[in-house]
Amino acid sequence: ADPAVLADARAHQERLTKPRGALGVLEDVAVRLAGAAGRSPAPMPSPAALAIFAGDHGVHAQGVTPWPQEVTTQMVGNFLAGGAVANAFAAQVGASVTVVDVGVAADLDDAPGLLRRKVAYGTADLASGPAMTTAQAVAALHVGIETARALIEDGARCLITGDMGIANTTASAALICAFTGTSPEEATGRGTGIDDETLQRKIDVVRRALAANGLEPTSHEPAGAAAGLRVLAAVGGLEHAAIAGFILGGAAARVPVILDGVIAGSAALAAAALAPAVVDHCVAGHRSAEPGHRAALDHLGLRPLVDLELRLGEGTGGLLAHPLVCSAVRVMHDVATFDAAGVTEKEI
Amino acid sequence: ADPAVLADARAHQERLTKPRGALGVLEDVAVRLAGAAGRSPAPMPSPAALAIFAGDHGVHAQGVTPWPQEVTTQMVGNFLAGGAVANAFAAQVGASVTVVDVGVAADLDDAPGLLRRKVAYGTADLASGPAMTTAQAVAALHVGIETARALIEDGARCLITGDMGIANTTASAALICAFTGTSPEEATGRGTGIDDETLQRKIDVVRRALAANGLEPTSHEPAGAAAGLRVLAAVGGLEHAAIAGFILGGAAARVPVILDGVIAGSAALAAAALAPAVVDHCVAGHRSAEPGHRAALDHLGLRPLVDLELRLGEGTGGLLAHPLVCSAVRVMHDVATFDAAGVTEKEI
Repeated sequence: ADPAVLADARAHQERLTKPRGALGVLEDVAVRLAGAAGRSPAPMPSPAALAIFAGDHGVHAQGVTPWPQEVTTQMVGNFLAGGAVANAFAAQVGASVTVVDVGVAADLDDAPGLLRRKVAYGTADLASGPAMTTAQAVAALHVGIETARALIEDGARCLITGDMGIANTTASAALICAFTGTSPEEATGRGTGIDDETLQRKIDVVRRALAANGLEPTSHEPAGAAAGLRVLAAVGGLEHAAIAGFILGGAAARVPVILDGVIAGSAALAAAALAPAVVDHCVAGHRSAEPGHRAALDHLGLRPLVDLELRLGEGTGGLLAHPLVCSAVRVMHDVATFDAAGVTEKEI
Repeated sequence: ADPAVLADARAHQERLTKPRGALGVLEDVAVRLAGAAGRSPAPMPSPAALAIFAGDHGVHAQGVTPWPQEVTTQMVGNFLAGGAVANAFAAQVGASVTVVDVGVAADLDDAPGLLRRKVAYGTADLASGPAMTTAQAVAALHVGIETARALIEDGARCLITGDMGIANTTASAALICAFTGTSPEEATGRGTGIDDETLQRKIDVVRRALAANGLEPTSHEPAGAAAGLRVLAAVGGLEHAAIAGFILGGAAARVPVILDGVIAGSAALAAAALAPAVVDHCVAGHRSAEPGHRAALDHLGLRPLVDLELRLGEGTGGLLAHPLVCSAVRVMHDVATFDAAGVTEKEI
């Protein structure tokens, strides 16, 4: 972020016809996005484009979720038919929806709104070794980067991350442990809703995944891009890697990226390991009910805008936040200053 | 709320292509609004209309705020010129903005977007006796009811409360103490930003207001409509009374009302005392930084949708929540069921 632009943005906020700081967290968002954009006010983050990256997971075989793996493919069909919650929320905020097959374990037919960019038919089981080869992780990163580039070329001025992948909160928990030093017990949650027995199994799977890949949690995060890529390939999913690339692609174009839930948060840890400055371009759309998400956002230094116990993924939390981000930026464009409006400032 | 409709709405949520409960608080909003509307799904709460009720306060003379009283009038001008934060947020969500002079201490000229419904040139000083006569409070309630009716006639399907009135958080604190039994120390906050000395003075003013009006906090809320009206007249503001009427008017037409911050929360306590069922039609748009707001929302049993440390009023928090409320309801209209989408439910 540009320090001079940050200072300009802060000074502009002080002159607007409202008590200082009265917009709370939204003032920080407006200032951060100005710094990231390199100009104050930041351009309006609209229109928005949601990309839902879909992938399957070898770890599904470990029984970490009651949902059958084919639900990933079925939900891709639901997104393309416009019947999912993400479609409803996207319609509400005027965002486009693009589904990207980066790793679904089935062949998908061509369809409007679907990008067929399959890197593999799902990942390998992270509980017993690397989920992806380095080449696969890099390929998935590139899918994300190229998706961001294409959506921005088509006019998007805000990117929203989405995901679909049965069992993908297991990979997210492992990523969060590896990148932040959080323990498997703390980072692992109930995902879309699992019972106590399944939760214990899921925690054990995360622990075994870290051990099998030489990534036992420590207080030291893996340093640098090479280590970041190794972690991502070892315990990530193809959609996590693609979302990390999507963040890199948005940041490279200075277009803000609204992160959805725990999948996006864990992918953002990977993106930040590859290129720390990308975090400046990220807004945490929401905090999900998944406990690891808090650890991820704390590590990234991001404060979520929506906190309503959602645990759906798909980009739903990011979509809900989009009007809030627009409102924060719009204040800098539209609101009168005390001088211009003839409003008296308070007596200090 | 209609219990059969509430049950229908809950059952419908269970059939949608998402894990049960995955939309967290938004599922409750959609179900509550269906019950309030008397049909499931509830009608889309759009378009929205913001009404900013403006009034002045005799208690300003007690030095409870560093802002000069004329800022109320100046900000009305700013709203009508489109230069305030409320205008920017309203533009973002497509809401209309109507300013209602229910008690500004100056004569205002006719202007597009202004309803001239002045009941008095501000209230009397609540620290030494009733702020309003009963007749004034009733007249201001009617202004709110009529404003709601007119906006709904013009096509509004969601009402958003707004306020402008220098010193009005002092009246809100007194209302919250009287209606909920919260102490002046707990209910009184820094409003738009005051120093420690002013805060102590403000707490003392609230304490004296309760004593002067025979409303010392107890664990018992004043029961019934007559007591509610007495409290409202004794320590409320003209804009508080009008907002209470606005809530009554929305509820009477079964149109949802999104409450803004602490002014709206305290006015809703009065509305609920007059007619408890109106709370079914209310959504708490946000929780402000003002401590009494939490007590008010807890008393009303409402959970805020946005919680971002805003402390501006004007309707800004209510406007931010509008797309969230629309998204919650839209799910019930748009999202496919498991059966219809051919998505497999989880193995239980």
